Amino acid sequence: MVDGIFEPPALEPGTLRIIPTGGLGEVGRNMTVYEIDGKILIVDCGVLFPEPDQLGVDLILPDFSPVRDRLDDVLGVVLTHGHEDHIGAVPYLLKLRQDIPLIGSALTLAFVEAKLKEHRIKPYTLTVKEGQVEQLGPFGLEFVAVNHSIPDALAVAIRTTAGLALHTGDFKMDQLPLDGRLTDLRAFARLGEEGVDLFLPDSTNADVPGFTPLERSIGPVLEDIIARAPRRVIVASFSSHVHRVQQVMDAAARNGRRVALLGRSMVRNMGIAAELGYLKVPAGVLIDYKSAADLPDDEIVYMSTGSQGEPMAVLARMANLDHEIEPGEGDTVILASSLIPGNENAVYRVIDRLTKLGATVVHRGNAAVHVSGHAAAGELLYCYNIVKPKNVLPLHGEFRHLAASARLAIDTGVPASRTLAGEDGTVVDLRDGVARIVGQLDLGLVYVDGSSVGEITDADLKDRRILGEEGFISAIVVVDASTGRVIAGPEIHARGFAEDDAVFEAVKPKIEAALREAAANGVRDNQALTQVVRRTVGRWVNTSYRRRPMIVPLVVEA
Amino acid sequence: MVDGIFEPPALEPGTLRIIPTGGLGEVGRNMTVYEIDGKILIVDCGVLFPEPDQLGVDLILPDFSPVRDRLDDVLGVVLTHGHEDHIGAVPYLLKLRQDIPLIGSALTLAFVEAKLKEHRIKPYTLTVKEGQVEQLGPFGLEFVAVNHSIPDALAVAIRTTAGLALHTGDFKMDQLPLDGRLTDLRAFARLGEEGVDLFLPDSTNADVPGFTPLERSIGPVLEDIIARAPRRVIVASFSSHVHRVQQVMDAAARNGRRVALLGRSMVRNMGIAAELGYLKVPAGVLIDYKSAADLPDDEIVYMSTGSQGEPMAVLARMANLDHEIEPGEGDTVILASSLIPGNENAVYRVIDRLTKLGATVVHRGNAAVHVSGHAAAGELLYCYNIVKPKNVLPLHGEFRHLAASARLAIDTGVPASRTLAGEDGTVVDLRDGVARIVGQLDLGLVYVDGSSVGEITDADLKDRRILGEEGFISAIVVVDASTGRVIAGPEIHARGFAEDDAVFEAVKPKIEAALREAAANGVRDNQALTQVVRRTVGRWVNTSYRRRPMIVPLVVEA
Repeated sequence: MVDGIFEPPALEPGTLRIIPTGGLGEVGRNMTVYEIDGKILIVDCGVLFPEPDQLGVDLILPDFSPVRDRLDDVLGVVLTHGHEDHIGAVPYLLKLRQDIPLIGSALTLAFVEAKLKEHRIKPYTLTVKEGQVEQLGPFGLEFVAVNHSIPDALAVAIRTTAGLALHTGDFKMDQLPLDGRLTDLRAFARLGEEGVDLFLPDSTNADVPGFTPLERSIGPVLEDIIARAPRRVIVASFSSHVHRVQQVMDAAARNGRRVALLGRSMVRNMGIAAELGYLKVPAGVLIDYKSAADLPDDEIVYMSTGSQGEPMAVLARMANLDHEIEPGEGDTVILASSLIPGNENAVYRVIDRLTKLGATVVHRGNAAVHVSGHAAAGELLYCYNIVKPKNVLPLHGEFRHLAASARLAIDTGVPASRTLAGEDGTVVDLRDGVARIVGQLDLGLVYVDGSSVGEITDADLKDRRILGEEGFISAIVVVDASTGRVIAGPEIHARGFAEDDAVFEAVKPKIEAALREAAANGVRDNQALTQVVRRTVGRWVNTSYRRRPMIVPLVVEA
Repeated sequence: MVDGIFEPPALEPGTLRIIPTGGLGEVGRNMTVYEIDGKILIVDCGVLFPEPDQLGVDLILPDFSPVRDRLDDVLGVVLTHGHEDHIGAVPYLLKLRQDIPLIGSALTLAFVEAKLKEHRIKPYTLTVKEGQVEQLGPFGLEFVAVNHSIPDALAVAIRTTAGLALHTGDFKMDQLPLDGRLTDLRAFARLGEEGVDLFLPDSTNADVPGFTPLERSIGPVLEDIIARAPRRVIVASFSSHVHRVQQVMDAAARNGRRVALLGRSMVRNMGIAAELGYLKVPAGVLIDYKSAADLPDDEIVYMSTGSQGEPMAVLARMANLDHEIEPGEGDTVILASSLIPGNENAVYRVIDRLTKLGATVVHRGNAAVHVSGHAAAGELLYCYNIVKPKNVLPLHGEFRHLAASARLAIDTGVPASRTLAGEDGTVVDLRDGVARIVGQLDLGLVYVDGSSVGEITDADLKDRRILGEEGFISAIVVVDASTGRVIAGPEIHARGFAEDDAVFEAVKPKIEAALREAAANGVRDNQALTQVVRRTVGRWVNTSYRRRPMIVPLVVEA
């Protein structure tokens, strides 16, 4: 791994520089910056969802600083597919310069445009297809079909005078995909024969041994569960997983059930997918959820959001009996989704509530109702062997995933010295068939909270953690500006400290005494008096309660 | 499930009443109260560890209210084994009445006594063994050996005039246990022949299909990993898992390595286990960790705590380079432990940091280095078939586990009407061979925070969540008590709100204007003026930042 921050040299003409600004050391906020001869190409621009200890944070963006002062040099953003961790930060980038062209497949751009509409941005777009070739200044782009858990995903080969880079985006290698659209290994092979100077593969599942099962292996399982379900069926999955929804609709249709879509993003995305022909709705199967209520229970399948236990999504609201549809005895709930690490508590809470209501809950822990969207180690070995890259920079994943991917590269014959271990902000230069780490930028996490972007610092989050874990005690004293005499207070208020306010009567005389003593010693400075109050309260609470709430002292002069 | 709170009838003489006060609907704080003819027996008294959204909570206790006013009727507490979720709340119970006798196996009591010593309590104890029979007032107790992830665990059969209850405590059915101490199915069979009126089995793994693998299957895996490790080996596991530590020591010894124990609880527990003969330390294998530093790297195994990613435990501190022992290139770290749901983020963070430092990390996700301590569905079927209970009350688990255990009972022929679905506070009466739910008490979560026990309410935790996610803004105004005129302020302070304090200049005139208007309208009441400040600040922050921090307004009269 890169050892500390160091400045890269000025970029020489004819050298291709690659800077991943997000997605290395985390699963999310994927973004990679390519630069050659003064021109910049960005591949993906996604968000990362916060961890539970990043309190109050809505989203985390890539750090745009490597391009922030160079926006006019950006020729375009290639979006490999329509998942939030690859497109979610586009609105924030376009707020910096609205006319940066977005390049992607029809479905990807449709998802991005729907998102941008919420931000009232109408983007410049270039729709591309697999096999298509485009020249963007010094970047020759060739798009390659890849298979993933959303249709119409693309890898991109980037040809420059410095060499050829192959950037896979997220992909897997389902050999019998529902839509027949394979990851184009013939193109990978052809590019490999031409000579891939730098390979940048999705590494999310590089530490998972073996092969990802076929998406279509889920269909019969869903069909069987739905066929046996005595009453209503509720299926939760990702709202962009067109093929999963397709399989649910097909299984419902074959069992004489109708499907009602629940959740704003589910309705919106499936509308887009159906309109563009990616989702083939069986005739007469769709029904709006209000009309579905009039059907017999064993003729209904609800297809909902909330498979990750998100508290505001439909499934959690149903489990809390905070939705028109109330699950109960005899209902069957299927979580046809992965369990993203960090969501376990929320998901199990939903499962338990549903179980308590009498529903049978089927999930990947007890039935084969989910397959991953990422190539596992077995598939990555094929890729490395087919591409035979000269240099490798594993992308997308926590460090354990990147390290596992690098291991696979080395096992297939890529020299260890050509297998780069990068992280966010690593600067890689490609020249004469050799890729080298030439710098490490100091990039940070950019937090979005409400309408604030990037204002929240890690120090603020530390404050929030203290407030959240310990609460605060504020102590206010009003002193006469001229004499320093206490004329009101101490008033003490606490929140989250969780003791009766009456307990503070014990500390008030201590504060008064401390201030009298300070006054006697000639202390008159407001900051010093504030410190006296802070110390007095802090000491008392620590001794009496063995706790360390935030102490907020205030000495007001009146 | 039980439908709402309802009072149980007065307990008739000759009826056995059972109230689980913790452990049903959660994995932890196990405690069950048995009562007959005015006398009470408690089985287990454990703690529950808080979830991430229970901010600042150290521990969660069972609600003692069913026994709080009846402490003199408590004849004893049977402790089935020495895990925290079965013994951790004993100090808090004994603080209510210090001379309640504790009954358990030698190792269990040794662990409890070590814990009580920290609370400066010396308990009354009765050490028992498998096969032993004791009479405690109306309760005839027979102890039965069970196998678990800690040695010396016991089930207890409770004979009363109302019938026979069999309470398993945590157990599994390893058929080749390291210490040869099997779960005594012959005793289960004999009790079954006698007639088990109420069976209360551990249900933690009831939703796991199949059988738990043998503990000894881990040994060769550990040995192989240690044999191939080029440099130091660090193994993390639970500090009470004597047999796991035994296997690590044996594997180390066979590879010519020495073992240094790290972590206070690891050192303490293994000291107790070795002294009592449960841990057989191979001759010359133990070394203190300071001396280990002088050994060649490939002769060291560190055995540490922190397998759940606990931030203050040794493993996390090593990963953060905040410990004398700094892992690096070529070191091997083995997490020989389960991954308790909720700990994923913390554990993966530790794994990633270790990977980044160059260590190879082996865990249950990529090697067979852990087996569960609980009987899976396959084993529970054996139990139900051998015991053939008349009535069942599944214990220990989230609702999905309890529901799965009930399903297994019904599948083996227990009538559904005799398979009780309880939760914490469910009151079950056993009489004439029939167990019935006769009440549902309103029991709560009892939070421990610092030295406060039970003071923290769910409302406090809600405040903490708001503070944690949004921070607070306090606005203080000093008014003249007689005229109502503002004589100082508004002073505004915020923490966790994460914007420059300068932004508050914008709201100060709004507060002043609002207070002037209120004064003009004759508002003089302090509470009403406080509301004016709160509303003004709240509206401004919501409009300007789309956020909802806690607003703490204060109008001080001077």
